[in-house]
Amino acid sequence: MGNIIPDNALETPSTMAPNKDLVGHKLLILSQLDMPDGYREHLRTKYPGLRVVHSRFNPWAAHVDATIPGITDEDWAEVTVLLTGPRLPTIEEAPRMQLVQLQSAGANYVLENPLFKDTKIPFCTANGVAGPPIAEWVICTYLAYQHDIPHYLENMRDGNWERRWDNMQTLDVVAQRVGILGYGSIGRQVARVATAMGMEVYAYTNRPRPTPESRRDHSWHPPGLGDPEGTLPARWFSGTTPAELDEFLSSGLDLLVVAVPLTPDTRGMLGAAQFKLLAKKKTYVSNIGRGPTIVTDDLITALDEGWIRGVALDVTDPEPLPRDHPLWRKKNIIITPHVSGNSKNYSERLLAILDVNLERLSEGKTEFLNQVSRKRGY
Amino acid sequence: MGNIIPDNALETPSTMAPNKDLVGHKLLILSQLDMPDGYREHLRTKYPGLRVVHSRFNPWAAHVDATIPGITDEDWAEVTVLLTGPRLPTIEEAPRMQLVQLQSAGANYVLENPLFKDTKIPFCTANGVAGPPIAEWVICTYLAYQHDIPHYLENMRDGNWERRWDNMQTLDVVAQRVGILGYGSIGRQVARVATAMGMEVYAYTNRPRPTPESRRDHSWHPPGLGDPEGTLPARWFSGTTPAELDEFLSSGLDLLVVAVPLTPDTRGMLGAAQFKLLAKKKTYVSNIGRGPTIVTDDLITALDEGWIRGVALDVTDPEPLPRDHPLWRKKNIIITPHVSGNSKNYSERLLAILDVNLERLSEGKTEFLNQVSRKRGY
Repeated sequence: MGNIIPDNALETPSTMAPNKDLVGHKLLILSQLDMPDGYREHLRTKYPGLRVVHSRFNPWAAHVDATIPGITDEDWAEVTVLLTGPRLPTIEEAPRMQLVQLQSAGANYVLENPLFKDTKIPFCTANGVAGPPIAEWVICTYLAYQHDIPHYLENMRDGNWERRWDNMQTLDVVAQRVGILGYGSIGRQVARVATAMGMEVYAYTNRPRPTPESRRDHSWHPPGLGDPEGTLPARWFSGTTPAELDEFLSSGLDLLVVAVPLTPDTRGMLGAAQFKLLAKKKTYVSNIGRGPTIVTDDLITALDEGWIRGVALDVTDPEPLPRDHPLWRKKNIIITPHVSGNSKNYSERLLAILDVNLERLSEGKTEFLNQVSRKRGY
Repeated sequence: MGNIIPDNALETPSTMAPNKDLVGHKLLILSQLDMPDGYREHLRTKYPGLRVVHSRFNPWAAHVDATIPGITDEDWAEVTVLLTGPRLPTIEEAPRMQLVQLQSAGANYVLENPLFKDTKIPFCTANGVAGPPIAEWVICTYLAYQHDIPHYLENMRDGNWERRWDNMQTLDVVAQRVGILGYGSIGRQVARVATAMGMEVYAYTNRPRPTPESRRDHSWHPPGLGDPEGTLPARWFSGTTPAELDEFLSSGLDLLVVAVPLTPDTRGMLGAAQFKLLAKKKTYVSNIGRGPTIVTDDLITALDEGWIRGVALDVTDPEPLPRDHPLWRKKNIIITPHVSGNSKNYSERLLAILDVNLERLSEGKTEFLNQVSRKRGY
């Protein structure tokens, strides 16, 4: 396999020879996920040269130096493609690594890892896999707030069929405006559903998207979903400065969806000054990105002061949220424990991405689907 | 006004002379709804001949013989257009009535009323007005079930951030199939949102819809919403016999939305035999039509036997649901007190329909928007 796998895969060459059968490659799957029936057979047929080792090890569950059942030192020495989460080998342990496929949409936990930081090995995310379930979570929690569902669930405990017809507090979302901070695969699927409900979509991205080509989504998405052409937003904001963000936050949003990755630029991006800008419309805030994007104490202030009319959080800072944390007791809040991306469809979609990337590897390509930019950090 | 308003409006002629200014007409509004700012002024400008009386009387709230504040016998004697709910005058009280605009999407409560039964006065519903909020309710409650939101709301009470990551119970709705029983304005908006979420739509109507024209929606809908051309369903079922309904119910539905009006044909339409057909897929059932369409005892059996995996009910039989009713204590159930159609946007949309119908009246037309068929009963 000498001339097929480079002696030192840590330096990715600009071109590689095709290796149709993936001869000499070893795929290591560290994942708690079920593999669909027939998946290994599919790999065996398509890539006769590929060896596959699957350990049902949860790469989130254990400390980085825990031993992994079913994985030998030799496996590490030979692995060329790794499907994992935060559990990564050292460069020395896995000298032949050529491709890391992460199970999560976010890559924040690898940014400081030497295997990412000190090499050029392509890391790919599961970006797009969780678009549908997370978009559903955003839509569900927002509609639940609008339609007072938590109140009625509460009433059910007492068999209380009290109607609120007379005050007609409910406001359907037709002609409301949703601002999507971070218009990636999740935001685009939120936009698709929101549009179908009659909402107007405003998008925010850090890089400007002035042309149709720049508005396209290059990450994976389930067929027919999302906004691959980027045509749904009525307005598109962009920038990296507080003033540019402020313009977006001041644009009369009924709902703000926070869907940015956690990077040094987005940490603490939404604090008291930003929440104050939402006060005019009492924007409802939904965070399905990462907790530290929002300054938690300032979020509590925003709720206490009525700058925002409610919040749905699948992610919090800190996480887990301690039992005595004041957020639990706020009104107009929905908190779930970082589960919005869960889906029984997850592994099927993740493996669809891995399939595309194995195909590219076998073709000798060096650009992969959902590849993390070392410059941008996602 | 002699030759403009027929002496006996109880017999609707096939043609009427135009009456552009609605001279001699009196509009009586019996409604708890707020009228948007400027609405009376709008009517005054458009129809200088139209007199308008608004009593903020809730036509659902009182017994049929209760007196109505602000409405005199003379008003009843002169009324030609009435916006109301169940509260209707007798034929003798309101001999000049030419048009009744109901505030509700359903007309079941007028079917036995002499003013409807014994006359040809056009009655129009608010069909379409509640399409968006009810569709939102359907989508919200179904997603809440799928994403285990009631469970997490429960956990919030104790500050419990327990994750269910490992069992990955959540199933997003991509590629699921929704069957919509009664493909009217509500069902069509459910179809629009469900399609955006990646679901496949099956429709059921009592009349066959073999042609594009027959699939069109002639009732009011908010611009850009619903499925006005009837192009979203992948399959379209129809019929009025149990065998035809059974075929639809056996078509592998993940979600069944019950959106039929209450008529003698639909009363008790879904009983034990029908729920058994849903057992293969453990179809989730959502009823936003009328409670008596479902046989309540059989629904309880279906839940107890696991034929269906859950149910969301905005309507129940009986209604109000008594405090000690067993439905309250079932698992996998969401009950709200007939509120899914509530919306602060309601009166604006209702008056948009009334506007169309006043326009038709002023043009001498005798076919109205959302007119109730005396043959079909809706």
